[in-house]
Formats: sequence, structure tokens, C-alpha cells
Amino acid sequence: MKAPIRFQVLADTPGGKARQGLLETPHGAVETPAFMAVGTQATVKTLDPEEIRATGCQIVLANAYHLELRPGAERIARLGGLHRFMGWDGPLLTDSGGYQLFSLAPLARIRDEGIEFQSHLDGTRMCLTPESVIEIQEALGPDIAMVLDEPLGFPHTREEAEDSLRRTTDWAQRAKEAHRRADQAIFGIVQGGAFEDLRSRSAEEIVGIDFHGYAVGGLCLGEGKRDTEELLGAVTDVLPAEKPRYVMGMGTPSDLIRGVSHGADLFDCVMPTRHARRGNLFTWGGRLSIKNARHAEDPSPIDPDCACPTCRRGFSRAYLRHLFQAGEILGQRLMTMHNLFFYQDTLRRAREALRAGNFSAWAEVALAGPLGRDPEGPPCGGDPPPPQGREVFAEFRRVIE
Amino acid sequence: MKAPIRFQVLADTPGGKARQGLLETPHGAVETPAFMAVGTQATVKTLDPEEIRATGCQIVLANAYHLELRPGAERIARLGGLHRFMGWDGPLLTDSGGYQLFSLAPLARIRDEGIEFQSHLDGTRMCLTPESVIEIQEALGPDIAMVLDEPLGFPHTREEAEDSLRRTTDWAQRAKEAHRRADQAIFGIVQGGAFEDLRSRSAEEIVGIDFHGYAVGGLCLGEGKRDTEELLGAVTDVLPAEKPRYVMGMGTPSDLIRGVSHGADLFDCVMPTRHARRGNLFTWGGRLSIKNARHAEDPSPIDPDCACPTCRRGFSRAYLRHLFQAGEILGQRLMTMHNLFFYQDTLRRAREALRAGNFSAWAEVALAGPLGRDPEGPPCGGDPPPPQGREVFAEFRRVIE
Repeated sequence: MKAPIRFQVLADTPGGKARQGLLETPHGAVETPAFMAVGTQATVKTLDPEEIRATGCQIVLANAYHLELRPGAERIARLGGLHRFMGWDGPLLTDSGGYQLFSLAPLARIRDEGIEFQSHLDGTRMCLTPESVIEIQEALGPDIAMVLDEPLGFPHTREEAEDSLRRTTDWAQRAKEAHRRADQAIFGIVQGGAFEDLRSRSAEEIVGIDFHGYAVGGLCLGEGKRDTEELLGAVTDVLPAEKPRYVMGMGTPSDLIRGVSHGADLFDCVMPTRHARRGNLFTWGGRLSIKNARHAEDPSPIDPDCACPTCRRGFSRAYLRHLFQAGEILGQRLMTMHNLFFYQDTLRRAREALRAGNFSAWAEVALAGPLGRDPEGPPCGGDPPPPQGREVFAEFRRVIE
Repeated sequence: MKAPIRFQVLADTPGGKARQGLLETPHGAVETPAFMAVGTQATVKTLDPEEIRATGCQIVLANAYHLELRPGAERIARLGGLHRFMGWDGPLLTDSGGYQLFSLAPLARIRDEGIEFQSHLDGTRMCLTPESVIEIQEALGPDIAMVLDEPLGFPHTREEAEDSLRRTTDWAQRAKEAHRRADQAIFGIVQGGAFEDLRSRSAEEIVGIDFHGYAVGGLCLGEGKRDTEELLGAVTDVLPAEKPRYVMGMGTPSDLIRGVSHGADLFDCVMPTRHARRGNLFTWGGRLSIKNARHAEDPSPIDPDCACPTCRRGFSRAYLRHLFQAGEILGQRLMTMHNLFFYQDTLRRAREALRAGNFSAWAEVALAGPLGRDPEGPPCGGDPPPPQGREVFAEFRRVIE
């Protein structure tokens, strides 16, 4: 039977793990390393499909949990599947929603059977199992489905990490057995918490089940950037070279570059889109906040070195600041375009360097510049640590991407 | 000296007042009758300039009062003027903000000198005079500037209407004398309240001052559709045929058709954009609310007979409903595109009928169909009646377009 996806490494790095590849899916090919734009609710916030493409995006990520809650996976299936529903005809991956349930932890009960929880929309009691998560994704019909895993908060004990590892392997096995769609790839997820040996063991167990690709989950949750790198390295040492590797929820542009150097092929993060809506912009000269009064009469684009539609069409910092201050949606759109383009551009440059065989030198220069000077923020710059306590509903609503 | 605008009537209606014309401005020509998209804060809400163009829009309206408050007219002038600031290189008209001040009436004091008021943004005490309103618009640099007028609430006494008429004429004279920019047209505004003879007298006085075009203000504020038509007719009977006529704040698609039959050339209204953001859509089969559960699994476009980008690209009612329910901005954008296109399409069809010499028959058929069956709503379907009492700040913020 024909494999749903095909992955080739086209260029690798002598003495290093970074590689440039080609991931072929039923809806087109993705040059890796690649950043997946986050389209949780079947829309990359503020953008239409043509604009998503114009950012340089090759593959979009949606969320099975969110779409099952609203409008319902079966409904989307009856409407012809997720690609057709959202008007995106390129490669599409859905996350299971494990991380979203993790964010809801105080309301969710994790059992070996699955995760019992209350809908964040209306409080309905529901249960997600490894099997039901596959069923939902088979109905949605993305090119790549993710297994249900159990992420772990930070900090945690070794015992908790072992527990999560065991359950994640068990669930991965059940997901593999439940998966039927021959035109859909399924990726396993490696857990193991903040312990390198457990990360290695988890990777071995998940690889043993045999998936079309492998993801690394539970990183960037508070463990510090150096630890993230070591844990990621421990996993990619084990993962087979011939399968694509996806680091979930990572990160800042410099995190992406470090991830690539550890052999990662796919990334996703809400950072570029969420930051854009808050007026925080990435440039090759460093980050800026459009709210800053110094932009009020600045006729220049966000970044003179940027070829994104917002910068190229001459929308000035002064105008973007005005739109932001006035609460106008166009500002959110134009800034989202820019930030997503910036992320894509970062990995486009990384791919070029990999093809040219000078990735290590390129990465060193890039990380020594403004890109490497990430302002202080949440680890990997992604989601804030999951909320604790009774305000979880409100908090979770706030962070939905 | 070359006139800033040129207007020609290309086709008129035997035995009627409807006409098809061409309005040439420094930034391009407008085929009339034409609907101006409302871009109060230097953006047509949710759309970028290319999309504004794609709706069929030929001329955009912005608001001098809003832009003076934020980001400031002098600032926009230093940035190269309003066209450049907002990236719209087509014809542009600014309203003075008289109507916005009217909405703020409980906080504004109208004197012969001008209008004293508090900024709705920060409460700062300010004064707009006929001269300062021209100064602001000369700084902004639209192709067409509007004089400051004094609209009147509804109901009102004959004495109040006479008072408003007198002041409006006086202010128009002062605005004319203050206006300097030779590359900018200036339009007078006719008031006169709900009294036909006062409407005629106001029109005579304003025409006597001699402007590049004439607007009819203070309609659609509660007087009922039949009265609107009679008052408009009384004014267009007086206005010179060779100058463009603009009916301010009107209305539903059927209002536009009735306005055209009374000889109006230009229209503006927040209705298509505001309704779109609330999920209320215009179609050739009548209005619909995307919130309605019957759309939840409907794979068809908003209107199969519509050629707008939203309908043409196949975004389904089901998807639009999902985006609306999920609070996603893309839904507001796609529905705004559709409604604005519908308005433009209505007047494009009217222009075709006028050129073909069968406008009256076309209008009769159009008004007898779903287009003529406006659901009950505020008069002319535009703004709700101005708020009364102390909640005016909150209410006004809510209705800003």
C-alpha cells in the first residue's frame, strides 16, 4: 500500500544533526525545516488562505479538540473535510488537543482509559481517549494526525515523568491500532519530562511502535532553554533519520534555529500570530512594540529588509500604530502577515544555508545578532505556563489560539 | 484656475430625476450613482485597500473629527496626507464630523461660533468651528471636504429647524471663505429638518454660496421613509443639475435605489460593514443572519448569484457561521467583503439601467422583490437614533464606525 507521506533528507550537515528535507503529503510537498502556522479553529487568526500562502507558509496546523467541540468533526466531515471547510488546499496537520487538555488540567482527570474533562465552551462533560482522538482526526481528514499524549507540567518528579511516559506509550500503541485511513499519516509523540534518560526511553518505545513521523512534546513548558536543547538532543539521537521530526510548540525564531541544529524538521507556535495581535513585531534588527510612541510619526515600514506584503506595500509604522491604538482589525491582520512571514523567512534562510552546506556558520551569525537576543519571556516564548486554580476557565479562554 | 473636480451627467431619465454621471477627482474618476465605503478611522473596517477596490468601491469616506482626535490631522499631513497614510490612492472624501458631534449632543454645546465638546476618547475639552473643520480637512487632504453643519434630532419644532438652518447657512459661508486648497473640492450641506419648505430654503441658501457639490444632511434620523423621500425630493428640486449630490448616511439597498430616483449621486452608510460584523448579510434573495442554525451544515455560499470574492472563492455558510460563532476575525472580513460588494453591485446595476434608459422599470422590479422588503429596523437602516442621557460615552463608543 502506498504510504500517505514520503520524507527525504536532501541535505545534511557534516558533523551535525541539522538537515534539509522534503515532506510529500497528499496535499502537496513541504520543504523542511518548516514552520506550521497555527490555525486552531480552522483559521489562522485574521488571515485568509491566500494570505497564509503569501507568508510563505507550506503547512497549517489545526486542533482536533477545538474543532470537535465546535463545530464538530462529523459536521466537518459531512461538509467535505477540513481542507475544504477552511479553504486550505495545502498540507494540513491536526494536533490531538492533548496540550489543550493539559492547560485545562485542574478540570481534567487523566486516567489510563483517557482524559475526562469539561468543555471550555459550555462545561459539558466529555472524554477523549486515544481511539476517539484518532476517530475525530480521521473525520477531519488532515494529511497528518497526532496521537493523544500526556504532557507533564513543570516542575515534576521523576515518578510523575515515568508515569506520563508509560501512559503516553500505551496510548500511542492504542492510537496506532485504531488508525485506519490509508491516506493519512500518523505521528507518535515522545514525552519523558525533564529527564534525558526518560526522553531517550520514550523515544525508543514510540519508535518501536512505528509511526510515519515523530513529535517531541512537553518541551518549552518551563524547563529553561539549555535544558530544552539537551532534552531535544537526547530524543533526536534516538529518532530514525529517515522520518520527519516535529518539535511541538517551539518557539522564538532563535529557538527554531537551535531546534534545526538538533535535527528538527517541523515547528509550530502561537508566538508570531499572538504577538502580532498585541503589536509585538519581529524584525531582523530585533523586536519592537508598535505601541511605542517613537513610531507615531515614523513613515518607514516595520522592517526595511522585509519582503512581506505589509512591508512591501508600504504600510508605515505610524499607520500600524494608529490602527493598533484605534483597535482596528486591519492592524492585527497586517502585523500577523509580517510576523508569520518573518518566521517563514527565518526557516527559508535556514534551508538555503543547509543546501549551501554552511548552516552552522549561518546559525552562529544569526544567533549572535538581534535574533539571538530574545527579550525575557515565557520559556521558548510560546504559551505562558498553564494556569493554576479556579480561574482556569477564564485564563484558558484567553490563551486559546 | 482648474477646478478640483469635474462632474458630468452622462445619462438622465426622461420624466424623472435619476441620472448617471462621472465625477472626476484628483485621484481618479467615480461613476455615479456611487456608494462610498465608510472608513472613519482611516480604514474601512477589516479590509485592506486592495480588498476595498475588489468590492467595486470607487471612493472612500473618512472622518475629520475622528482623525483629528487620533492620530491628529497635522500628524497625517506630515506623513504625506490621508491617501498615503491609509494606502488608498483613489478618490477620498472626509466628513466634517458634524454628525458625530450630534451623536455626542448631551456633551456638546452648539454656539454660533462652533461646537464645544469633550473628546469621546479622553474627555479633553475641544471646539470645532467651521474654519477649524476646513483647516483639519486641508491638512488631511481628501479630494472632497465637507463643511461643518448642524444636524437636528428628530422630532423637533419648526423653530428648532429654522435655527439649525440659519446656523448651517452661516457656517457654510464661513467654511467657503476659509477654504484655500485649490486641489480640494468643498461640498455644502443642506439642512432644514422635517419641513419641506425649510429644506427648499436651505438648499437655495447653500446653493447661493456656491460649492463644488451639495450634500443633504439630517435625513434618516427618525422621520420615516416616506418623509425622507419627500424631503430629499424638495432639496433635489432646487439643487443645480450640473453639480454632484450626496445624501449622507443613507441607507439600505432599497433606500439607495429610492435615493437615485430622487436624483442623488453619492451615498454612504455604516450599514453594510456594521451588519457584516454582526453576521447580517444582504443577498438578492433577501437578508439572512449567519447565526441561524439552518446554516450550520450549508455548503453553499452566502448568495449563489453573487460574484464577490467571498462567494466566488467558495467560503460556505457553514464555515462563515463557524467563524462567527468562534469569534474569528476572518469571518468579519469575509462577510464585510460580501456586504460591501452587494451595495456596490446594487448601484452598478442601477448605473447600467440608467445607461440603458430603463432605470424606472428596473427600480420598480428591484423594489418589488426581496430587496424592497427591508426588515424593520432603524430608519434608513443606518445608525440608531442618537443616544440620550448620561450613557452617551459608552453608547457612542459602541456605535463608532
